[in-house]
Amino acid sequence: MSEYTVSDYLLDVIKHLGEDEIFGVPGDYNLQFLDHITHRNDMQWIGNANELNASYVADGYAREKGMATFVTTFGVGELSGINGLSGSIAEHVPVLEIVGAPTNKVQNNGALVHHTLGDHEFKRFEAAHEQLGIKVTRLNANNAINQINETLQYIYYTKKPAYMILPSDLVNMPVNPAIKANISELFVENSFNVDHAVQKLSQAIEKAKQPVIVVGHEIDRFNLGQAVESFSLNNNLPVVDLGLGKGAIDETFANFVGTYNGSISDNEINNFVKSADSIILMGTKLTDSVTGGFTQQFDPSQTITISANGSDIYGETIIGETDFVSIVKKLVDTKLNNTWDKVETPKLSQEVSARDNALTQAFYDQAMQNFIQGNNTLVAEQGTSFFGLASQPLAKGANFIGQPLWGSIGYAFPAALGSQIANPNRRTVLSTGEGSLQLTIQEFGLAFREQIKPVIFIIENSGYTVERVIHGMNESYNDVPKLRYDLIPQAFGANDDEYDFINVNTEKELINAMDKANQEIDKLVVVQVNMGMKDAPEQLMKTAKLFEQQNQG
Amino acid sequence: MSEYTVSDYLLDVIKHLGEDEIFGVPGDYNLQFLDHITHRNDMQWIGNANELNASYVADGYAREKGMATFVTTFGVGELSGINGLSGSIAEHVPVLEIVGAPTNKVQNNGALVHHTLGDHEFKRFEAAHEQLGIKVTRLNANNAINQINETLQYIYYTKKPAYMILPSDLVNMPVNPAIKANISELFVENSFNVDHAVQKLSQAIEKAKQPVIVVGHEIDRFNLGQAVESFSLNNNLPVVDLGLGKGAIDETFANFVGTYNGSISDNEINNFVKSADSIILMGTKLTDSVTGGFTQQFDPSQTITISANGSDIYGETIIGETDFVSIVKKLVDTKLNNTWDKVETPKLSQEVSARDNALTQAFYDQAMQNFIQGNNTLVAEQGTSFFGLASQPLAKGANFIGQPLWGSIGYAFPAALGSQIANPNRRTVLSTGEGSLQLTIQEFGLAFREQIKPVIFIIENSGYTVERVIHGMNESYNDVPKLRYDLIPQAFGANDDEYDFINVNTEKELINAMDKANQEIDKLVVVQVNMGMKDAPEQLMKTAKLFEQQNQG
Repeated sequence: MSEYTVSDYLLDVIKHLGEDEIFGVPGDYNLQFLDHITHRNDMQWIGNANELNASYVADGYAREKGMATFVTTFGVGELSGINGLSGSIAEHVPVLEIVGAPTNKVQNNGALVHHTLGDHEFKRFEAAHEQLGIKVTRLNANNAINQINETLQYIYYTKKPAYMILPSDLVNMPVNPAIKANISELFVENSFNVDHAVQKLSQAIEKAKQPVIVVGHEIDRFNLGQAVESFSLNNNLPVVDLGLGKGAIDETFANFVGTYNGSISDNEINNFVKSADSIILMGTKLTDSVTGGFTQQFDPSQTITISANGSDIYGETIIGETDFVSIVKKLVDTKLNNTWDKVETPKLSQEVSARDNALTQAFYDQAMQNFIQGNNTLVAEQGTSFFGLASQPLAKGANFIGQPLWGSIGYAFPAALGSQIANPNRRTVLSTGEGSLQLTIQEFGLAFREQIKPVIFIIENSGYTVERVIHGMNESYNDVPKLRYDLIPQAFGANDDEYDFINVNTEKELINAMDKANQEIDKLVVVQVNMGMKDAPEQLMKTAKLFEQQNQG
Repeated sequence: MSEYTVSDYLLDVIKHLGEDEIFGVPGDYNLQFLDHITHRNDMQWIGNANELNASYVADGYAREKGMATFVTTFGVGELSGINGLSGSIAEHVPVLEIVGAPTNKVQNNGALVHHTLGDHEFKRFEAAHEQLGIKVTRLNANNAINQINETLQYIYYTKKPAYMILPSDLVNMPVNPAIKANISELFVENSFNVDHAVQKLSQAIEKAKQPVIVVGHEIDRFNLGQAVESFSLNNNLPVVDLGLGKGAIDETFANFVGTYNGSISDNEINNFVKSADSIILMGTKLTDSVTGGFTQQFDPSQTITISANGSDIYGETIIGETDFVSIVKKLVDTKLNNTWDKVETPKLSQEVSARDNALTQAFYDQAMQNFIQGNNTLVAEQGTSFFGLASQPLAKGANFIGQPLWGSIGYAFPAALGSQIANPNRRTVLSTGEGSLQLTIQEFGLAFREQIKPVIFIIENSGYTVERVIHGMNESYNDVPKLRYDLIPQAFGANDDEYDFINVNTEKELINAMDKANQEIDKLVVVQVNMGMKDAPEQLMKTAKLFEQQNQG
């Protein structure tokens, strides 16, 4: 192990990009690589209970920290994680998967080894990943260092995930340690000349009588939230964000209007956006779940798009996909040749007054909005939690993680753990339903082993309420087994003093539980929130109707 | 719902093929199809805690019952199950996956709907499945009935899995109920003329001085165990089986020698096979994990192969892949023109004498061999359990489920539940390690909701022992969180009287626990078996050495 190897170089690059933890599951084709992680002093291996969970934890970690890596084994491991990695593709999250593979010799011989389909083929799994549009790299002995550089640069510059096959015979291949000195030169801020494009965009925006900026997830992934705020403040441009992009900007800044969700948004927000004559989309994807089922009615003749896929004005492309960051940053310094009135943003703050009443989803959403403070990340599962919480304004400094495009149930819990591990000095708050939680619940083992202390709200509403309101309200297929969340922490290895469990039935009990969670910062706090089976947020009820109509063809 | 629809027809065909239960996870693109299951009186929907588990449960069910079906939703659901379905490809298990998809209209419009990658592409997921070599069918309105027939015939005749996309707009499409009458004609026993091939095979076998039949998993999947036994008995041909194929034949029948595992087999078995001058491979795959790491040394000049991929004599192909069943059945009636002496098979039965000693893996394996009776299916996880138990002879009537080729950890627990559901009048016994169990542990919820009563042995040996013996004996990446298996049943919804938990440290305690499990047939019994971290079966230790050498290139 004293020699400097391909593995050490790969890990040095990953470390340079800010990662302190690597996730995954051991398997006999990656064990030797894992040695290189556990033998370092500056990185920690965090083993997951399975690969899907690992991929979700990595996604949550990357959303906080800018990048994440998880390690799987050939065939079985990588395919178990492929749903999570696909979520990172869909939602534009920079995650690297390293797949430990059989040696080139074994692969070239087409041997009938385990973790293959027994058909002598070794390229099926990478081919499957290619079909999903993911960048695939298979390291080879002649060119491994360049391949590593190129893959990590891809992730750094595009903020998209990548998949790398590491055959076991390359793991301990020696390389010259001097190459380490050049790592920092690989990752610099590109500076493109975008003057012409910015001029055209500015001219188009200047013509607007009443413009509005719509912020999406790419602003978050490229860390451009403050740039957008400056651009807005410099020119009195009002801003809304989407559920797919919430957390990108400070929702307390002066020109922020609210979170827009098509025609099912809160009335003030909907009217505000409807009255705009020019829509400036910044890093958005207008997907069904964040536009009230495509009810945004943005006419192409009034839409200016600035995105990682390129920029266009009223449907005419003006620049390609490489210059997104440069354009947004250049706009910050641009004083537009128009003067709009100071934005009058609607006031949305909601007072919570708790009674002894049975808890409702509506009260829960308001209480959660008050509970989340600037040092919290709120992770909302793509069920009642997301649809109820995405429309609530976030405190300054608070972050928000959801998955409205990919929408894989079970994602939120591991993602919350990844978020908490990425930010030990902040506190992650998870809101999930019990239907979703069961998919990935074994990651409680990791939470207690790693001694992390998030607050976990489990909405117990007798099954998949998000599905019930779409179709099959009383159907048994929307039931789930009744778990005992009071026993789950100890079952997964918690000591008595490492956690608290609180059961909540009324509004007052919820507020008390939140107060207690705030006091118990040294414990993982589980709050079971009991609600009616049919109680769902208004925006979900409206979205669900549209979804069901759509499914009927 | 009164009209007869595409969904009803699909379910009628599935029912005709012997399935009484359908597994899976609801999602908004499959809910309307699930209505057709829950509204039937002759089939049951059994929802899983996640899609990977569903795919494993289906695989275990199919191994017992001849076929299984699970239902997922587009994108997120199907990708979560793709590892399990790949295992069914690798190990030749007839499983149908039905994927509920957006309507054709939505897909043709390329809408930015949830559960896609947000790139307007709707064929990525089926393309990924195609890369894995799986049969892919996308139902279309013009030809849905023929496509259903063709897919189900493929599964029935090849015993391989298939994947079917069901767009939501086809779910309730009416079809003529009269087509139902023709279902039984779709599935008949093919009878090919294989006289010439069987004659050639017979002539080749007749020349052998000392032949041995090696039985593999295809004999199990095509239900040809009794045919092989008759062929053997008619001609005094000795038989060994492989770990990938264990359970195919009665291991107590007169000519059975033992389970062969290359040069690391028990001495008597190894010597028996080594002394043969002619090896008759019947439905085998000689993979690393069931040949002691390719130590079988079968020379092509002495090998006769009869398999689902075709048959050959000394490397020369004599017939293609379609006639496997016909050939094996024809051989049964063939009296070979040679007389071999009655086989002297080694006697392998092992007496167990329990002491107060700390439990060892070696004692455990012997005790388990005695414990498993004819009404049991033994499911052995691909860790210490499989490597210790695959070499133990099985009682007459007992079945065995392992996954030595695909080897996906976490498979065994859901597969055991599927096996138990398939055979409510038998009892499934699972042997798994705690490292593997954690991957899929939430399916305890299903076990208690469905009130099934298997016996579950959990080997607690402080982590991934199967990985430790390959590489990283004391490395932290081979640790797993310490779970409280005494609390797991109640945490996942069990009442006090529905389960028993027994903790075992000594040989005597194990025997007592086994006795108790045999008495408690009305309970799900969990036995925690504590063993040393480094205690592994001899065959695993030997295999592991070969694996590590191989990984070093």
